[in-house]
Amino acid sequence: MLTGDLLIGGRAVRGTNGEIYGLNAATGERLPTSFGGASEADLDQAAALAWDAFPLYRETALEARAAFLEKIAEEILAIGDDLITRAMAETGLPRGRLEGERGRTMGQLRLFASELRAGRFQDVRIDPADPERKPAPKPDLRLRNIAIGPVAVFGASNFPLAFSVAGGDTASALAAGCPVIVKAHSAHPGTSELVGRAVQKAVAESGMPEGTFALLYDSGLAIGQALVADPRIRAVGFTGSRAGGLALMAVAAKRKQPIPVYAEMSSINPVILFPEALQARGRAIGTAFAGSLTLGAGQFCTNPGLLLALEGPGLDDFLAGASEALSTIPAQTMLTAGIAKAYAENRARLAGHEAVKLVAEGQEGEGAQGRAGLFETDAAQFLADHALQDEVFGATGLVVRCRDLGELEQVLDALEGQLTIALHISDGDEADARRLLPKLELLAGRILVNGFGTGVEVSPAMVHGGPYPATSDGRSTSVGTRAIERFLRPVSYQDLPEALRPAALR
Amino acid sequence: MLTGDLLIGGRAVRGTNGEIYGLNAATGERLPTSFGGASEADLDQAAALAWDAFPLYRETALEARAAFLEKIAEEILAIGDDLITRAMAETGLPRGRLEGERGRTMGQLRLFASELRAGRFQDVRIDPADPERKPAPKPDLRLRNIAIGPVAVFGASNFPLAFSVAGGDTASALAAGCPVIVKAHSAHPGTSELVGRAVQKAVAESGMPEGTFALLYDSGLAIGQALVADPRIRAVGFTGSRAGGLALMAVAAKRKQPIPVYAEMSSINPVILFPEALQARGRAIGTAFAGSLTLGAGQFCTNPGLLLALEGPGLDDFLAGASEALSTIPAQTMLTAGIAKAYAENRARLAGHEAVKLVAEGQEGEGAQGRAGLFETDAAQFLADHALQDEVFGATGLVVRCRDLGELEQVLDALEGQLTIALHISDGDEADARRLLPKLELLAGRILVNGFGTGVEVSPAMVHGGPYPATSDGRSTSVGTRAIERFLRPVSYQDLPEALRPAALR
Repeated sequence: MLTGDLLIGGRAVRGTNGEIYGLNAATGERLPTSFGGASEADLDQAAALAWDAFPLYRETALEARAAFLEKIAEEILAIGDDLITRAMAETGLPRGRLEGERGRTMGQLRLFASELRAGRFQDVRIDPADPERKPAPKPDLRLRNIAIGPVAVFGASNFPLAFSVAGGDTASALAAGCPVIVKAHSAHPGTSELVGRAVQKAVAESGMPEGTFALLYDSGLAIGQALVADPRIRAVGFTGSRAGGLALMAVAAKRKQPIPVYAEMSSINPVILFPEALQARGRAIGTAFAGSLTLGAGQFCTNPGLLLALEGPGLDDFLAGASEALSTIPAQTMLTAGIAKAYAENRARLAGHEAVKLVAEGQEGEGAQGRAGLFETDAAQFLADHALQDEVFGATGLVVRCRDLGELEQVLDALEGQLTIALHISDGDEADARRLLPKLELLAGRILVNGFGTGVEVSPAMVHGGPYPATSDGRSTSVGTRAIERFLRPVSYQDLPEALRPAALR
Repeated sequence: MLTGDLLIGGRAVRGTNGEIYGLNAATGERLPTSFGGASEADLDQAAALAWDAFPLYRETALEARAAFLEKIAEEILAIGDDLITRAMAETGLPRGRLEGERGRTMGQLRLFASELRAGRFQDVRIDPADPERKPAPKPDLRLRNIAIGPVAVFGASNFPLAFSVAGGDTASALAAGCPVIVKAHSAHPGTSELVGRAVQKAVAESGMPEGTFALLYDSGLAIGQALVADPRIRAVGFTGSRAGGLALMAVAAKRKQPIPVYAEMSSINPVILFPEALQARGRAIGTAFAGSLTLGAGQFCTNPGLLLALEGPGLDDFLAGASEALSTIPAQTMLTAGIAKAYAENRARLAGHEAVKLVAEGQEGEGAQGRAGLFETDAAQFLADHALQDEVFGATGLVVRCRDLGELEQVLDALEGQLTIALHISDGDEADARRLLPKLELLAGRILVNGFGTGVEVSPAMVHGGPYPATSDGRSTSVGTRAIERFLRPVSYQDLPEALRPAALR
């Protein structure tokens, strides 16, 4: 069923610039099919087709574009179980998670279809003429948002469906009216081809221009960087490491015409534990925390890696609950051997830090499995070493003991921008929580109470973003309907005769 | 009435880091009052006060903030004629223009006051909980936009009121809930102090935190750059030269936490002349063009510096009409001696270009006056030398003769991003104009028909922005209600108890 071909303009083309293979995440063995890397010429062709498609695609009727997104969702479902089994093999993620992620992916496409039908994203504003105004007549002014141009999307290792080939970045860019060129993540090329072919089929069957979509593999880093540098690309969507995001930002900033890069990078998602909540239900919070920390082997952008705990009688209950739960949790296969190796190293560095103490561990694993870990330190030590803020991508958490609210505030003042901050409170903690809120709003894109940030609703009211360096652009979200705004810009039309006005402005 | 003091936190402080003087634009003579340049310590104090004010100011009630903006407008009017006469002396602009600009400045403040009362800018979204949802309960999610943080505003030389101390950037930033630190333009320090004192008085009388506003003079470039680099500054508004804008963008990009810079830089605002329009009313278009070109000595960001004319029998009529009108237009005093010198040099370079021919000139001037000029070349020559696209800031225009629509499209393909593009058409030109429209939408922030871009309405449907390098960020506008969006970012609140919810989300 898989061919390993690049998908460019309705065709499947063998890439000749090196090869990549999907690997079984658990065993490291090569999976069937070799994928040919894209050359500069392949990229040039995909970009040329995207640029040709752009004027046509961005002016397709909203209903036609909505039906196209729904068609993509249908075609993804029509792949059937082959998609799930291939993704399981390539990522090590379990069936239930991937089936859920497929549903989420389809849900995102359908949400943007309904946004298109609602039309609100166009922000149409009509300010009519007033020929009688003094001292000068008032012109007719009409505004709408238009698509920004072809978009480069980089597949994410940790969401092989919902943030890869037809994930949130692609869905919102296509909804905005932007052709998309996807650089497949090299950790799941087979999953990427399956979904890519579903999108390609939807393009053809919906009568969209052939350059609306392309899928490229990159045997190294050069093609991905050349994609961001290409003058026909006008925005970038990326979810991944901070180093990866910063590298793409640097390429974009060096272009003759700089473009926005929406990179979702790193976050340790602080969880603040208040004393009354700990006293009332410390153990239960600990148990729930262990579940959130280890979900998907801890490989979520919103994984709760930092706990800021106010000292008090309930903190031991929390630690006991978390420790007990963690100790029963099996090690889990990580997404790639490289991620597992980096996790083991970063976890070991934390464990070996002189100011850090091991609190509890999950069950031991083997090979590419990651073993959960919970560590602790105190606020003074945390403040003394900025490296304790570094994300450990995986199921490792660090508890920072804070003597009082003042010390907690000092820690907050030292934190970098985050995707989420969670607060665990009881009624008696509310006054202190309210005092912190203004600080928290400046630190994170989402603030939540008595829960954990893992589990990101696809909602009009969601912000999956946050101040730098959580993302490259804290004014944006990559999940929820506002994600479409990243790929739009406003144009004002003054005194255009009816015949020249774009349909939305008549 | 003037003291030359820095305005920091409700106080007037003598700056000790060099001196600047306002100069009479016409004569070059020093005007009364020396203005003391801000030191690093002054900047630090202003930034510290802005940072302290921020949490209070951004949560002031919308009605209180609206009344504060209206109070600023009142206080500006209350300065009386001293403001107009000082601005006339410092800028060389005539009374009528400055009285109009004062009205515009007050109008902008009042427009944002009404935006605050409407509240739409907060983009409040409430997505209620559904505890019964399967497989997992749905949380309560609420979104609002919050202010991004203290904003640095750089006064513009060419709008001493409407884009300086209390101009569009300041009004929109204050409306968003951001404290503002203004770096006064050194060409009109007296005008800046007068307006700054009006804002300072409004801050005090409205009971806003004292750090809500500050005004600094810079005897060089260092304090302005240090302002952009300051970690407490979270966004920048700038209108000026491309070199100035790029320099501030570079400072912002090098920060530990990069911030958005909204720089409105350079634009030559192409005017496309279609053959039927030229044939029907070429002479009248030429006359109107000469008026737009020379308005305010040609010192508008939207000045029509480039005319793309389709060859045909009406083109001579246009040139004759423009030439006749231009020849009667007196030279006008430019904003500064430096601007006048640069204008004379750039105009001379264009006049001396081997592919460029003089068509007509305005009347000769003296000293710091700028003489209008109209030049012509053809499309092939224009395409051969990118330097012919360089903005000549002042009343100089270049006509590019295009043989046919194909050649015109080639010229459009070679153009950089623009603020505006104007089309002059008759009914018979509509089909060709429609064909160009998709290209024009990608080139400019505003497209207008049978008019000129000078005269920027303050309207909800206005875009005063455009693709790089017209501005640093083609997703934004600096005029009109959408200007407020530049200083906001979204935050999502999940499952917050009623008592913790920001008022707008209850």
